Amino acid sequence: SSDITPITATLFPGDGIGPEIAESVKQVFRTAEVPVEWEEHYVGTEIDPRTQSFLTWESLESVRRNKVGLKGPMATPIGKGHRSLNLTLRKELNLYANVRPCYSLPGYKTRYDDVNLITIRENTEGEYSGLEHQVVRGVVESLKIITRQASLRVAEYAFHYAKTHGRERVSAIHKANIMQKTDGLFLKCCREVAEKYPEITYEEVVIDNCCMMLVKNPAAFDVLVMPNLYGDIISDLCAGLIGGLGLTPSCNIGEGGIALAEAVHGSAPDIAGKNLANPTALLLSSVTMLRHLELHDKADRIQNAILSTIAEGKYRTADLGGSSTTSDFTKAICDHL
Amino acid sequence: SSDITPITATLFPGDGIGPEIAESVKQVFRTAEVPVEWEEHYVGTEIDPRTQSFLTWESLESVRRNKVGLKGPMATPIGKGHRSLNLTLRKELNLYANVRPCYSLPGYKTRYDDVNLITIRENTEGEYSGLEHQVVRGVVESLKIITRQASLRVAEYAFHYAKTHGRERVSAIHKANIMQKTDGLFLKCCREVAEKYPEITYEEVVIDNCCMMLVKNPAAFDVLVMPNLYGDIISDLCAGLIGGLGLTPSCNIGEGGIALAEAVHGSAPDIAGKNLANPTALLLSSVTMLRHLELHDKADRIQNAILSTIAEGKYRTADLGGSSTTSDFTKAICDHL
Ligand SMILES: CC(C)[C@H](C(=O)O)[C@@H](O)C(=O)O
Ligand SMILES: CC(C)[C@H](C(=O)O)[C@@H](O)C(=O)O
Repeated sequence: SSDITPITATLFPGDGIGPEIAESVKQVFRTAEVPVEWEEHYVGTEIDPRTQSFLTWESLESVRRNKVGLKGPMATPIGKGHRSLNLTLRKELNLYANVRPCYSLPGYKTRYDDVNLITIRENTEGEYSGLEHQVVRGVVESLKIITRQASLRVAEYAFHYAKTHGRERVSAIHKANIMQKTDGLFLKCCREVAEKYPEITYEEVVIDNCCMMLVKNPAAFDVLVMPNLYGDIISDLCAGLIGGLGLTPSCNIGEGGIALAEAVHGSAPDIAGKNLANPTALLLSSVTMLRHLELHDKADRIQNAILSTIAEGKYRTADLGGSSTTSDFTKAICDHL
Repeated sequence: SSDITPITATLFPGDGIGPEIAESVKQVFRTAEVPVEWEEHYVGTEIDPRTQSFLTWESLESVRRNKVGLKGPMATPIGKGHRSLNLTLRKELNLYANVRPCYSLPGYKTRYDDVNLITIRENTEGEYSGLEHQVVRGVVESLKIITRQASLRVAEYAFHYAKTHGRERVSAIHKANIMQKTDGLFLKCCREVAEKYPEITYEEVVIDNCCMMLVKNPAAFDVLVMPNLYGDIISDLCAGLIGGLGLTPSCNIGEGGIALAEAVHGSAPDIAGKNLANPTALLLSSVTMLRHLELHDKADRIQNAILSTIAEGKYRTADLGGSSTTSDFTKAICDHL
């Protein structure tokens, strides 16, 4: 495989446990001989005026150039005058869809063993507009913005994803009985796109009912697409069904074919540097990155090695009730490769 | 007990299965010799201009006068020019808090057996303002309104409820990291009220994390208080944990001491009139009404009879996997009394 031109991908190891779990990914990629070369970027220590955040302009340029990247947890530094790192990335790179495959992990027991769904969240507008003001003393308002353009874009992505990943159904999640104009527009766009995909079943589910159904019978869902805040809520709820954010991959899709995979859990400063962190979410996120690159063989091999290691249960990190170190767990995965 | 002056309460049997399950409540109240006389009101067949809905002015006057009522499911008739029945009730009666006790029912198995929490939802503003408009073609916005007055009012109610019901903790659910002004004001009000209740532990939980925790470990929560939409979502999620809306009571608290208990499930037109409906949610709602009236003995007796009947499992309606009729199930409860 040494004659394959390697793909350059941006790597943000991130803060806290970030560097350790990023090391785990690098090791697994080396072992699996994945033709990816990492271009590493760290969060800066000063505000970069060009990004208005601690993210450097160069690191954003790196993702724009490579069109593919992997991101560990980033702790937004406390203080005023700068933007959240996650929100800066979403905005600057126009990461319009957050995609999270969520499936029960064989051998890792939760109350659910039949979860197998994909949440697709609109990631740029809605309740995250940042537009808020005080009307009079004691009365404040926030604006939720829904646009036809962003709704069509994420709906397109969801149906295209369903079609290319052998999925059968797309459920649009909404509260259009109350927010008739905003969520109504979102649904209208989903319906328009649905017509172009007659082979995919399309349904609409009110968010409160969706959450009730998810906890009663998550197997009722396949692909879910929704506005920003509902996606934020439901993707975390779904992660909870299978064990938490330490186990769920995530990938952000941006304009121009950008894919930035990320572990969405926190930076866990309490255990940072102690070789105790669970690299599973970042590893599984790196798998979604490989799929985006259409390196399906490598993706399958690595995913199987991760799942087998967890299923065997011999090497598990403390968060999953085991006592393995990050490096033992990583080595076990490499041994499976 | 015949020398006790009976309390008059408004009863909205509602649509679909409403009249059958209301009959069940009436029968249980008679058997338990509850000193309540019902004043029955039905949803009208024409729009009442004074309410702009199919609810009659007289029925609203009845609740205002009696200050206490019980409501079955109401199907809002399709068509324009009138307001939803539920939203009309909330607005006209100023029902500012929706309270839902949610606990695992002994003997009725779900994936959870340790749920015991109370959701308290702000019920008048937030995302339900109804203020929406198109900014330009393809761009729409909805306003979320949070006021100091309504936030303090529901926070007061939540802490007072916690204190008077032997609860230890109140969690305010929010997304103030994104909606800093609106959810920020809500939190500020909760903090102010929390200071007056030093015996109650106060915490703040971000809604996405809250939903994840709820599905992983609902026992982590006690009383939850939140803005309107989060309450809508989380109360249904919690109902799902213990079996669904057919099993959860709900009570709306209004200005001036009004309490309107209600079954929040649908009117199930497909099984209406067939003696198949499960009256549990309306019965348990009637229990919350009795508690509001401080008829705790009656409330305890009826609640125990309902829970024992479900726990025994001999008489269960079809939705719970049994084959009992509404009247058999009701009779079994009466036999327990
Ligand atoms: C940290 C926060 C701003 C963020 C969000 O709300 O989007 C997080 O919850 C997420 O899902 O990535
Ligand atoms: C029917 C709908 C308007 C209502 C709401 O969103 O409040 C319902 O979901 C509820 O919780 O009572």
